[in-house]
Amino acid sequence: MSQETAIKILEKGSQLVREKGFNNTGLNDILKAAEVPKGSFYYYFKSKEDFGLKMIEFLHSGISKLFYGYLAEESDTPPLDVLRSFFEGFRKRFMSDDQKCGCPIGNISQEMAATNPRFREKLHAVFSDIIKPVSLCLDRAVESGDLNPSIDTAEMAEFIINSWQGALIYLKVSDCERPLVLFEKYVFDRLLPVYVSEKE
Amino acid sequence: MSQETAIKILEKGSQLVREKGFNNTGLNDILKAAEVPKGSFYYYFKSKEDFGLKMIEFLHSGISKLFYGYLAEESDTPPLDVLRSFFEGFRKRFMSDDQKCGCPIGNISQEMAATNPRFREKLHAVFSDIIKPVSLCLDRAVESGDLNPSIDTAEMAEFIINSWQGALIYLKVSDCERPLVLFEKYVFDRLLPVYVSEKE
Repeated sequence: MSQETAIKILEKGSQLVREKGFNNTGLNDILKAAEVPKGSFYYYFKSKEDFGLKMIEFLHSGISKLFYGYLAEESDTPPLDVLRSFFEGFRKRFMSDDQKCGCPIGNISQEMAATNPRFREKLHAVFSDIIKPVSLCLDRAVESGDLNPSIDTAEMAEFIINSWQGALIYLKVSDCERPLVLFEKYVFDRLLPVYVSEKE
Repeated sequence: MSQETAIKILEKGSQLVREKGFNNTGLNDILKAAEVPKGSFYYYFKSKEDFGLKMIEFLHSGISKLFYGYLAEESDTPPLDVLRSFFEGFRKRFMSDDQKCGCPIGNISQEMAATNPRFREKLHAVFSDIIKPVSLCLDRAVESGDLNPSIDTAEMAEFIINSWQGALIYLKVSDCERPLVLFEKYVFDRLLPVYVSEKE
């Protein structure tokens, strides 16, 4: 059996988990979506929990590439514009979903982190790799003089990601983009300007 | 059978759902925790979904009393101090849980709102009754001159509750109070002061 099969199971399975939750996604649902027999699944994954843990690693890898690639690279665009357009891009992506399922990592965290320490540990590592590139982007804004050095960029990045995750919950509940629009407004138009250098 | 039995099922069941999620809580778990036979359950609830919807109404009632009682009543304490101590109180309550399960409404929303319109509708009503008393408290801060009338209190209340819900996800993942401490810091020490009247 090929590695391609494992990736197909992870891709199709993680999409189901994003829509329905981990506990509510049955092994048969995954097999059907990935079009593989049960034997293939157990060739790659010891159990459904093992699949869940490998699925988090699989999502982690994609998310890290996306966040670091967009936010942590040097660019000619001012860092705060980069950060804002990143969240705007996600808003458009989430709004184009038929079901407003939000962030797969936020979903699994809400469902599994409190009760499964193995999931919690892996999810913590993903959150770190979501928060870190935001903090690196804020660091560049400090270096370029767009933000005052008094800002604690690690703390601010954590607050921003948490606020965004909460807005994604209310996206599901309200079924409209307003929570994400308010997130962008209050973070970028109200909170970060508190730290704008007084050079202007 | 008495109404007490229904309340016992709702109380014990909602605690299980808070810990394990709705889909992962089996009917037998609920019967065992509430110490009632299956017949009692089906006397009050047509199905597990019907139980879920009634559970949201049950939580809604308690949450409304708590939020409106604390935040929307006139008091001699400055409104922003009332609001801050409300969230501080919740932080202490959440930290004393053995399992950091967070807000039951946030949990069920993350799990059910995108895929079940009946749940979504009821959860939306609960969120409205969480956001509204925060907005009333902010209105009182405007009336008392502690906040500038330029603030949109309805929007700000929504942003605050969403940020808090996100901090509660990361509470589960990080297993420490830092996300809630950062929430209080950035909302009360950085964001709301942007709207402090210039009378001082």
